[in-house]
Amino acid sequence: MSKYWSHIVSTLKPYVAGEQPRIANLVKLNTNENPYGPSPKALDAIRNAADDRLRLYPDPVALELRESIARLHGVDAGEVFVGNGSDEVLAHTFMGLLNHDAPLLYPDITYSFYPVYSLLYGIESRQVPLDENFGIRLSDYGQPCGAIILPNPNAPTGIGLPLSEIEALVAAHPDQPVVIDEAYVDFGGDSAIPLTRKYPNLLVVQTFSKSRSLAGMRVGFAIGQRPLIDALERVKDSFNSYPLDKLAQVAATAAIEDVEWFETCRNRIIDSRTRVVSGLEQRGFRVLPSLANFVFAMHPDFAGTDLAAKLRDRAVLVRHFAKPRIDPYLRISIGTEAECDRLIESLDDILANR
Amino acid sequence: MSKYWSHIVSTLKPYVAGEQPRIANLVKLNTNENPYGPSPKALDAIRNAADDRLRLYPDPVALELRESIARLHGVDAGEVFVGNGSDEVLAHTFMGLLNHDAPLLYPDITYSFYPVYSLLYGIESRQVPLDENFGIRLSDYGQPCGAIILPNPNAPTGIGLPLSEIEALVAAHPDQPVVIDEAYVDFGGDSAIPLTRKYPNLLVVQTFSKSRSLAGMRVGFAIGQRPLIDALERVKDSFNSYPLDKLAQVAATAAIEDVEWFETCRNRIIDSRTRVVSGLEQRGFRVLPSLANFVFAMHPDFAGTDLAAKLRDRAVLVRHFAKPRIDPYLRISIGTEAECDRLIESLDDILANR
Repeated sequence: MSKYWSHIVSTLKPYVAGEQPRIANLVKLNTNENPYGPSPKALDAIRNAADDRLRLYPDPVALELRESIARLHGVDAGEVFVGNGSDEVLAHTFMGLLNHDAPLLYPDITYSFYPVYSLLYGIESRQVPLDENFGIRLSDYGQPCGAIILPNPNAPTGIGLPLSEIEALVAAHPDQPVVIDEAYVDFGGDSAIPLTRKYPNLLVVQTFSKSRSLAGMRVGFAIGQRPLIDALERVKDSFNSYPLDKLAQVAATAAIEDVEWFETCRNRIIDSRTRVVSGLEQRGFRVLPSLANFVFAMHPDFAGTDLAAKLRDRAVLVRHFAKPRIDPYLRISIGTEAECDRLIESLDDILANR
Repeated sequence: MSKYWSHIVSTLKPYVAGEQPRIANLVKLNTNENPYGPSPKALDAIRNAADDRLRLYPDPVALELRESIARLHGVDAGEVFVGNGSDEVLAHTFMGLLNHDAPLLYPDITYSFYPVYSLLYGIESRQVPLDENFGIRLSDYGQPCGAIILPNPNAPTGIGLPLSEIEALVAAHPDQPVVIDEAYVDFGGDSAIPLTRKYPNLLVVQTFSKSRSLAGMRVGFAIGQRPLIDALERVKDSFNSYPLDKLAQVAATAAIEDVEWFETCRNRIIDSRTRVVSGLEQRGFRVLPSLANFVFAMHPDFAGTDLAAKLRDRAVLVRHFAKPRIDPYLRISIGTEAECDRLIESLDDILANR
């Protein structure tokens, strides 16, 4: 605390990202990165753009990238907003679309950046408890509210909602913005993007960090009808004219266009997830049903924090959240086949030495 | 305007960046980019990092880059904050350090993003008129205020203040944060960074977009004592964990280390500026004394908007601000020697056909 701080600074509760340590031979399953690299075409695009033109500002509206995303999803480029990671897209969404006279609703167990944004922008929010199986019960969202944000699949549970339920939620709140945060949708969920045609209150947010393997390049986007995108653009143009650097733009554009790479990598991850779930269940874990590139699992014989520490001793890094209800659980990203084997072997070692 | 917008959205007055058009043979002197490319070492660093590791999130605290900046300026890495262009650094600064009970002061003619940020964050601000020669008169800042932000050199005038005056201003406001925005300081100004050792209320902001030729990569930074940097980090960690992508981090680090490239390019620009100023004055222009990589100039026979249009007809793009007092002026970036020649030739053509 300092007299030079604006009043808000001491009230903030900053988000704490998963660590990015430098440990040799680390099996890094703590930040839901894709275990396979980006499309070789994305890497080529970066190398081809790494020249004197970097002296110039990038395209402030990232038109080529937005056109590419629009083609993929069958919308107009004017219905696509891009940002410096989906975190920036979400931040602008909280400021521009989720601050109303009635409270914002989101699950009590969800992406832990949501309460951080709410504090940052002074948004009154109400956390809606998940049900006893960690599911989102949509009837709980039938209360007066100013807006709703939900991840689908949810994080850190990995549990997904069918599109019919998302549509029912959006249709039931025609006067409120409903934001569906689909960071993990490409690993088995159904995207609500097609519903944006029909529902002017629906915004869908996605990222290039997971299924497109470009966490290192920081690209996220939102799709919705023009008035919603307008709000995000007005906030963005009041914040930073050029949020995406030139190389992020070309890399993301090339990644979108390499459909085969995308399909191959995500299908490998989905297959590995099936193997990890069965390996964990065979070892006595309770595993929530995941549609994401991670699983959320607990073992009845271990506290979550202890198990995370024992895995870390074996150079396997997973994420633990010291929060009510989910304290016994670990969020484990799906790695390569070899990394998944290392995880299971480490668990066998821990269980044998219990 | 839409019922889905947060209240603030319709009150915003977004910044309008200089255009990034695609015109063949364009002499682009409108956005103060460096006419020379980035350091070849920065381009090598990008190519060497363009591999599978981009699947991983970048270092959220950009430690190597901060250490490199810290070494250059003789401070600790903990006294350096980095962001996605100095615009993001400034945005976080407005939110975290410039919002107080008394008004924020800045010049009436200055970087036009300042009033935009003030609106975005609900900061009461007071614009202090420049003097009759477009100079900042520091005695005008001796009024009650919550904070002060000044560019040095100022934009779009290019006029710089000596370090002794900056120090007097900082010393006169021990209870207020004073932010010096040094986007253009490397073209002849004196940086206030050394003063940060002595003054806990001083924050200095710089960018890699101008003197380091990395506008396309979006990197800016701030230097100040730890409590000021803490405020920025708290805001940043409430907004976006990873604002700088991996390639921006490695490129900026390499650019800092290539001192020779930096010196060569900026000296060429300073030399070209001298030539441009004398060429303009010989043709009847009034040119403000510039310490930046642009000049601010007017010709008594032309309205600013007309002259800008005539230059554009000749594929020379400069920036015109349709604002009181500066409406007759053009802001002309310093290009390569050949681009400066094209500017002067185009002006000769316009003047001959007057």
